[in-house]
This record gives sequence, structure tokens and C-alpha cells, in this order.
Amino acid sequence: MRGGGGRAGGFAVLAMTHLARRLQGIEPFHVMDVLARARALETQGRSIIHMEIGEPDFPTPEAIVRAGTEALAAGRTHYLPALGLDPLRGAVAGSYPGGERPDPARVVITPGASGALTLALAAILNPGERVLVADPGYPCNRHFVRLFEGEPVAIPVGPQTRFQLTADLIRAHWTRNTVAVLLSSPSNPTGTLVPDEEMARIVHTVAELGGVLIVDEIYHGLTYGVEARSALAHSPDVFIVNSFSKYYGMTGWRLGWLVVPDEYLSAIEKLAQNIFIAASTPAQYAALVAFDPQVRAELERRRRTFQDRRDYLLPALRALGFDIPITPDGAFYIYAGCGRFASDSRAFALDLLTRAGVAVTPGIDFGRHRSGEYLRFSYATAQEKLGEGVRRLAAAVG
Amino acid sequence: MRGGGGRAGGFAVLAMTHLARRLQGIEPFHVMDVLARARALETQGRSIIHMEIGEPDFPTPEAIVRAGTEALAAGRTHYLPALGLDPLRGAVAGSYPGGERPDPARVVITPGASGALTLALAAILNPGERVLVADPGYPCNRHFVRLFEGEPVAIPVGPQTRFQLTADLIRAHWTRNTVAVLLSSPSNPTGTLVPDEEMARIVHTVAELGGVLIVDEIYHGLTYGVEARSALAHSPDVFIVNSFSKYYGMTGWRLGWLVVPDEYLSAIEKLAQNIFIAASTPAQYAALVAFDPQVRAELERRRRTFQDRRDYLLPALRALGFDIPITPDGAFYIYAGCGRFASDSRAFALDLLTRAGVAVTPGIDFGRHRSGEYLRFSYATAQEKLGEGVRRLAAAVG
Repeated sequence: MRGGGGRAGGFAVLAMTHLARRLQGIEPFHVMDVLARARALETQGRSIIHMEIGEPDFPTPEAIVRAGTEALAAGRTHYLPALGLDPLRGAVAGSYPGGERPDPARVVITPGASGALTLALAAILNPGERVLVADPGYPCNRHFVRLFEGEPVAIPVGPQTRFQLTADLIRAHWTRNTVAVLLSSPSNPTGTLVPDEEMARIVHTVAELGGVLIVDEIYHGLTYGVEARSALAHSPDVFIVNSFSKYYGMTGWRLGWLVVPDEYLSAIEKLAQNIFIAASTPAQYAALVAFDPQVRAELERRRRTFQDRRDYLLPALRALGFDIPITPDGAFYIYAGCGRFASDSRAFALDLLTRAGVAVTPGIDFGRHRSGEYLRFSYATAQEKLGEGVRRLAAAVG
Repeated sequence: MRGGGGRAGGFAVLAMTHLARRLQGIEPFHVMDVLARARALETQGRSIIHMEIGEPDFPTPEAIVRAGTEALAAGRTHYLPALGLDPLRGAVAGSYPGGERPDPARVVITPGASGALTLALAAILNPGERVLVADPGYPCNRHFVRLFEGEPVAIPVGPQTRFQLTADLIRAHWTRNTVAVLLSSPSNPTGTLVPDEEMARIVHTVAELGGVLIVDEIYHGLTYGVEARSALAHSPDVFIVNSFSKYYGMTGWRLGWLVVPDEYLSAIEKLAQNIFIAASTPAQYAALVAFDPQVRAELERRRRTFQDRRDYLLPALRALGFDIPITPDGAFYIYAGCGRFASDSRAFALDLLTRAGVAVTPGIDFGRHRSGEYLRFSYATAQEKLGEGVRRLAAAVG
């Protein structure tokens, strides 16, 4: 111990460091290197177009901010019940259309979708048990599996299956130790949905295999030209992870929800009491108005803006030679094959940053399956910046 | 799966339920039964004095609320960096006196002390590894150990050691599989501190044993007639868990911090990025003013109010026949032996509720060591209510 016990500091520090093995299975985000270099360049006066961003560029809708402010003024600063504010649980449940609508008692308000995934995986996973995920996929999802000593099994997916798992892939990769499937629809980084008929097949296949299905629907609401149905349309016995972050524009408030199958409710409540105590009180009161018609109107305007950006960026990237065989349905990402230009997405991302002043996320942040040949472009950036980004990319790779 | 696959619903639901074994090691809070019955009685018109409460009855100080409101008005609703807002990390570091002050780079802002414990234990614990904790002690602490597949070892403590672990107890219970010690000072439920000289011995003993020391200091600031020194006074190589909840009156905002030994910083950052993304943005901006002199003055007034309540309640409970051999130094709890009246604290708590209309927390929520013979009284309740509570208790047990 440094400065203690009269021993040499360096030696003793090494002796006491005790890092859990799970950390070896949790990779750092490579985009952080891109970001650090982008900041360094900006400090030197370089202009950087940010297409690596994972949150909407819009602020929280005014009515939600006002509700938060009013909650603070009313002294809503004490703990709420572990499962959340009842009227909010009711409002969330009521936001689902008829055929998908869960009992409000099954809606648990969480600190972000992160909190929802924590609860679901802590409730089901024993050490060494496997969870099937798509590769490419959102890295935190497989890291949450490692956090609770599970083993994420990354299944390579490509354009043939819209970069999503299918019932057949799930069946083919199922083993005795497999207990769950974790899907994201729309996917980050690919923006693609699991088609509704395929989701029905997946729901039935996972049930037949005796497993648990967790569906991350945090980009629901942000789909273009297609309405995403919740997996709840096919069964009440799936875990649904969702959030006020993306569609509702409340990232920094850290508020999400988990729809819980009946038989897991008491376990989830016990976990929520212990792990979180409760989600943020001001955020929960603020979110109460998120489903109001005038807020919905504002959110729908934003959705159309995202759609316009996608409809601009997608053909522009294709014209530059990026390979995008599947049109993304939602989120604000385009997963673009850059194999024509490079085979090391990390080096290519740093190269584009340095030469073109455009920051993007390298594919290797999302898995190992051909991830050196892909970049993720985000369009959570104003149209004029996207236009400038495309001009710069054209100069660099054209 | 219910309604799917043409199989009998009940059978299939049982087949797919997959509860993790860790849940067996996580007990529900027995006080929830007390609370449920209290609510039922209140619905019937009964007046209940609440002495089971675990959060300050004061609202968040006005200046902090105002800073939160201004942050919202300024559009501070996007994600912050995973380790927290730099000025807040600096302010937290600066709030420690000279001999204890950490480098701001070692201060990580978390979603409550819950988030801080999550990070620390996820970073160090492998399955089956042991963590020493005091019995009685805060139940969530041992549950967090189970969450990450560790094994909490509850060491019986009593008045002889001020209901705290000592260096000798730690040495006596250390095994090959033991990797860490988790202390709370002041303790919940006993309100007792680890004396500063004993903390120095503990710090050196744990280092010598090659273990990790985590000290929960969330009730620092709420000590009476004695200033609690941070364990940081004795070493920079301890994890310190703290929070804006108790002293700063920000429970519902869910904001805390973790002071991290240098060698764990990169692991903790990787975990924070993955598990939380970041702590609440409005809460972090609000907390920036928590260390201002006028806020401090208000918090010190509140501290004196808590001290007055302790100084009223302690002799009153003793006069009624409750056994309280050690005067609690802080927090807002009195852990009172009720062996003269009962040996089943859960039944006795329900009995006091029904007969006297006073809600308290049974000792069994805090461990197994003689926990049937103790109740936890909270004085996070206005003086007149405490007075009424004591009158009712006198009528019931006098």
C-alpha cells in the first residue's frame, strides 16, 4: 500500500490490485480514440464534422423540461418507489397500441435503458450461461452479459438477414448452456428492424427452446416509412427494454423502462430496490408529459427531420462508394461498408478524421464479424453539417 | 409460452422461467411488510408515526434546486462524460480537507452511492470471492456482493467494537478466497463510526493482507459532536463511496461519487461507460452549488436539528427500556435492543405498528446476528412526531 507499512510503494500497489476477470471481456470503445484526437484537432483550430454521435442533437422538448422544472419547484426531490411512479408506469403502458399493451404493473421505470438491461440480465443469468447476440451489435449489450458472468455468443449477421438474428440462426446456435437471446430492433449500428413476421418466429422459437427473449426497442419511434411493432405484439412473456433517451430526447436525464414477464416481477422488484433504490424523481415527473399530444407532435416533426437526413445521407454515401446493401429502417445510423477503401476500420476512421476532418465510429466497436470493413455514420447532426461532411468525404475518398 | 405454440399455458411458463441463483442470496426488505401494513392502516384513517424512514425529511436545499432549474433552462439535458462533469469532480475533491483530498481525476460521479458500489464491486470481484461486511449492516451492501457473484461474509459485531469491524476481526476472518472489506462509517443501522485510529489499523491490515478496502461514507457530514475523517486520511488506495443523498439532501436526484485508487481508474471508466453511460446531467449541474458557503450554512442548520432529535430520542428510548449501550455518532438511526420486550423483531415491529401506530424497521433487515432482538428507529422525522411516537411507545411497552 502506497506510503503505508514501510514497504516499497510500487511493489505493494501491484500486490493489492485485484481486477475482476470480467473486465477482460469488456472492451473499451475505440471511438474514444477518435473523439480524443478530434478534440485535440479542434483545440488546434481544425473544424471537425461529428458523425460519430450516439444521441439526438435536439434538446429535450420544452414541455418535458417545464414539467421537470415544476416538479423541482413542487419539492419532488425525495425517493420514489423502486418500480417507479405509478402514473408514469400507466402512461408508458398506455403508449403501446392495443395489441401490444402491457399491464402497467409489468412496467418498471429504470435509470435509462442501461438500468433496464441490468435488471433483466441480473435476474436471469448464472455464471457461464450463454446469451445470443448479433454481430455487429451494440457493444454494451454483450458487456452487460459479461458483467453478470454470462457468456455473450456473438452470431455473425449480414445483409442476408438485414443484419439481425433470425429464428433459424437462434436455433442453429442454441446449446445446453444457452439461456437467452438479446435483440436490438432497430439495431445500433445498422438501423435495421427485425421484420414483424420474423419476430413472431423468434418469439416462438425462443419459447420452444425454453429460453428468455430480451428485445431492446430503444429506437422505437425513430423509424422511417415503417412503424415498428413491439415484440409484445407476439407474447407478454418477453422482456422489453426501452428508454426516454432517443425518441423522447431525454438522454441526460437517464430514464428508461423494462416491461417484465409476470413470473419475474417479484425478482425484478427485489433487484431494483437493492441496486437502484429508484430512478430519478425529477426525471420521472418530467416524463409524465412525454406522451401528451403536443409533445408527440414535436417528436413527430423531429422524426421527419431524421428521415430527411437519412434520405439525404444514404444515397450520398452510396454514391461515394460505400457499400450499404440494406436501407436502414430507423435509429440515426448508417452502417456503411468501406471495404473499397480500407480493411482496418479503426485506422480508416482516424485517417478520415485527420485528412477530411470527419469523425465516424469504426465498425470494430460493434463486433468482430467483418467489422474492419465497416464504419458507422450517425445523422444526429444538422443537415448543413451532413452536407459539409459529405463534401469532405468526397474530397478524401472520391 | 403463454398463448403460443399450442401448448398448455401453465406448463410452458414454468418451463421458461429462468431465475438466476444470485436472487436466493438477495433477501427482500422486511420493512416493506411494515410499510404495506402501515399504508393499509392509514387508508383506514389510523395515524401512523413513521420512524422507519431512510431519507432526510428536509427537501433539497433551495440553491441546489435553483441550480438544477437553471441547468434545465440552459438546455443541459444531453449526456455528460462517463466519469462526470469535470468541475463537479473538482468540487467534490476540494470538499475534502487537506490531508484527505484526492486528485479530482480519481473522483467519479455516479448514479447514487448505489452506482458507486456497483462500479467498485464489478471492478474487483470474481465469482466465489469473499467480501467481509459487518452484521448488522446495510443489507444492500451484501446484496451488491452477491450481484457480482461474490460471497458476502457477515461478521457478527456488537457494542464491544461499536458495532463495527476492527483490524483484528478482519484478520481473524480472512481466508485465501477473501479479497475485500466493505465498511460503512457511520453505519446504517447503528449510526456508529469506525474510530479514526482503528480505521488507520484497518487500512494497513487490509493492505498487508493484499485486499481491497471499500468504505461507505454516505452519512459523512451527519455526525454529531464529532467530525468524521475520511479513510482517505490514511491512504489514497481505498475506494470511497459517498453520495449527495443524505447530508446534501438530494436523495431523489440519484447522485453519488466514488473515489478510485489510481490503478483501478481505467477499469472503472470502462465500466462506467458501459453500465451507466453517465450520471444524470441536471443533477450534476445542480450539485455544483452544493459546496457553496450559503448551502453549507443551511446544511449545518439541518445537522444541528438532527443532533437535537438524536439527543431527545436516545434517552427517551433508553428510559422506555430499550438497550442502547453505544451512543450513535451519526446518520439518523438508533439501533435499539428490544430483548426486554421481544425476541422476534419482525413480529414486534408489526405489533408496535398495530398497537401503537409507530412504524420501525426490524433488526432482521440488517443481518442475522441477534437481529431478532433489535429495532432501528429513524429520527428523519420532525421533533413533534418523534415526541408523539415516544408517547405511543410508552403506552405500548411501558
